[in-house]
Amino acid sequence: MKQVSLARRAARLAPTMPASSHEHAIPFDSGHGFPALFPDLTAAAEKALTTYRHETLQYGIRPGLPDLREWIAGAMNMDGANVTPDEIFVTNGAKQGIELVCRLLLDEGDSIVVTAPTYFTSIPIFRSFEADFIEVGQDKEGLDTNELAATLDRLKRDGRKMPKFVYNVPDFHNPTGVTMSRRRRKALLELASRHGMYVVEDSPYRKVRFEGTSEPSLKALDHSKNVLHLGTFSKLIAPGLRIGWVAGAQDLLARMIQLKADGGSSPLVQRIIVEWCKAGNLAAHTEKVQRTYRLHRDHMVAALQRELPEISLLVPEGGYYLWLTLPHGVDADELAKHAAEAGVTVLAGSKFYARVDRGNDVTPKKHMRLAYTHSSPEQIDDGIGRLAGALRRCGVSSGGAVTERAVAHSHPTIA
Amino acid sequence: MKQVSLARRAARLAPTMPASSHEHAIPFDSGHGFPALFPDLTAAAEKALTTYRHETLQYGIRPGLPDLREWIAGAMNMDGANVTPDEIFVTNGAKQGIELVCRLLLDEGDSIVVTAPTYFTSIPIFRSFEADFIEVGQDKEGLDTNELAATLDRLKRDGRKMPKFVYNVPDFHNPTGVTMSRRRRKALLELASRHGMYVVEDSPYRKVRFEGTSEPSLKALDHSKNVLHLGTFSKLIAPGLRIGWVAGAQDLLARMIQLKADGGSSPLVQRIIVEWCKAGNLAAHTEKVQRTYRLHRDHMVAALQRELPEISLLVPEGGYYLWLTLPHGVDADELAKHAAEAGVTVLAGSKFYARVDRGNDVTPKKHMRLAYTHSSPEQIDDGIGRLAGALRRCGVSSGGAVTERAVAHSHPTIA
Repeated sequence: MKQVSLARRAARLAPTMPASSHEHAIPFDSGHGFPALFPDLTAAAEKALTTYRHETLQYGIRPGLPDLREWIAGAMNMDGANVTPDEIFVTNGAKQGIELVCRLLLDEGDSIVVTAPTYFTSIPIFRSFEADFIEVGQDKEGLDTNELAATLDRLKRDGRKMPKFVYNVPDFHNPTGVTMSRRRRKALLELASRHGMYVVEDSPYRKVRFEGTSEPSLKALDHSKNVLHLGTFSKLIAPGLRIGWVAGAQDLLARMIQLKADGGSSPLVQRIIVEWCKAGNLAAHTEKVQRTYRLHRDHMVAALQRELPEISLLVPEGGYYLWLTLPHGVDADELAKHAAEAGVTVLAGSKFYARVDRGNDVTPKKHMRLAYTHSSPEQIDDGIGRLAGALRRCGVSSGGAVTERAVAHSHPTIA
Repeated sequence: MKQVSLARRAARLAPTMPASSHEHAIPFDSGHGFPALFPDLTAAAEKALTTYRHETLQYGIRPGLPDLREWIAGAMNMDGANVTPDEIFVTNGAKQGIELVCRLLLDEGDSIVVTAPTYFTSIPIFRSFEADFIEVGQDKEGLDTNELAATLDRLKRDGRKMPKFVYNVPDFHNPTGVTMSRRRRKALLELASRHGMYVVEDSPYRKVRFEGTSEPSLKALDHSKNVLHLGTFSKLIAPGLRIGWVAGAQDLLARMIQLKADGGSSPLVQRIIVEWCKAGNLAAHTEKVQRTYRLHRDHMVAALQRELPEISLLVPEGGYYLWLTLPHGVDADELAKHAAEAGVTVLAGSKFYARVDRGNDVTPKKHMRLAYTHSSPEQIDDGIGRLAGALRRCGVSSGGAVTERAVAHSHPTIA
């Protein structure tokens, strides 16, 4: 019954998870954490389930545990922001934050701005709200604000509705790994303010920096209160916690909180996090995460240079991913299939492009995202070897290496 | 900026939480658990965070932990259902189940059937999907299937679209405490099947039975696979876990899983639950919950008979709530305000009616819901004393008691 309606609804949705990998496949496809990095949370859990039992096993309030909101506000302010605990709303990971932003802001016929490529899990969420996508390119300084300015001017001139918000991952962009320069950040906020748009700053990787210096977060530069900042404990502590947050203006959060239909996020998990952080574990753990993933990144880059010199990439200063440009004539979707058969799962670039009406644009076919976080250095060697084998099966032989550091010194387009 | 859109969106939403009670208020307003009943989960958490660390701190798959889904299917089958683990989908509590059912099934212009009164937290969720409400009455046998049949026939005769689903709490209904009779359950499923509607069985209280015998769940009687059954660990173990589930046909679940934008529910909490249950704790704990809440119920009924004999009610055989009928001339909204001032929080009946266009119908004003679970017997005595004082301030003096047992022997309307 109701197959028509269901089919139509299902058709709106692209797959939202990587294809399930076969049992012994090496997983370069997912943003999972390296298992050996997961911290010991037993002492915090013991305390949460004894001292705080009446709080942690009862319904929690929707905005989140006051202690955790205070801790998050403090951590953000240490990082240059200026937010109060009342401007923090705890969610089931940053993904729920994306959904709630959409529920709050999007109406029928609305458009939003995303980079091309963009975070692939966000695409079906935006699509399920029937948002129209306006894609903007990136280069080594991140989102191309000149292109965005021109697009917005054109919309205005044509009397079209302005996009509701710009969604971006300004630090260690997913999938490209690029970090927005400070002048681009300022230009983006200026455009948002001028055209009455919000900026959704998705910031899961900010602390996963291996080298170089951070630019201020968009939230730290947000004088017009246009920024909805999405944070998470997934990428720094553990994804299984399913706790993230939205930082934004209080009047927006008040409305968003009403839309969180599942009620307050688990007070048990929130208490575990805040006790673990307050016990002073986070600083040393963050360093360990940075050290470990830097090693994974370096290992993967070296393996790629050794085994697949015909692939070019920008080496990111942090985050979880490498964004590869494949040799001319290689189709990333085809390569991903061969790779899966060879026992290594990767994500083809096509998954990261929001617009489906691309005409003759073959750009998505030229790229591939590899995550270096989930696998061990040994698995990385093994996996890159398998990927090289798969590429050979796509009919490409060895060529010259093209590897650069992803720092803001020149502006080739990162499509 | 965008105040028009935001204001409109906010206007769709009724408050979804009880008014915040002042610090020392006695809470009869919420479906919270009695704190002293919350179990010791430390051993299960220790195991989850050590033995299962690589599972519990990693991203979990969206359908839920296979072990937990298997456990849930087994528990439901022990209770007369016939479901496989593949027909179980783990959610952040049953409330997220309600939202996902709406996201899956509701399109613009759709209507749904709810009882009048119905679970007040579900109302703003349904409203946020702009569902039209068709209200159906109840009596001591639960949802009035004759009235529903007549309504559906009328819609059909008028060439109107059939409602997408019937939402009901068949066991210890929230707020009325009524349990649907077996013949009504069968009649409801027959109507659903005949008119191509789904049935959403919200079943948080089923195991919280103090006396009498259970009727088969709607899911157990569901031969046409029309029932989406919502279960939860909140009312039996602890609400702070935020873990519930949807049991339904696999093709429906597959689509619903795609709509769970926050990804898989916390594998950490899921593992804590399944370890605790598998260690054999649940049976004894369930008995303790039943014994304790029975005592609370009896205590509250006795206090009401002693202090407020002019109030009538049906004594439910289980669940969390008493549904009071106030003496003629007392306005429940006004009484709720006086009660809050007197330091006891209650929910006025008006919060439980989905339709806002009620014309001259004053029924909602005649009722009030009291939860006996959250407070201790001493607090119950104190709180009912305060409520009696508040009723006196509404200008009503003592009258005759009207208290019946809520068993299916006669059919006065429970509005």
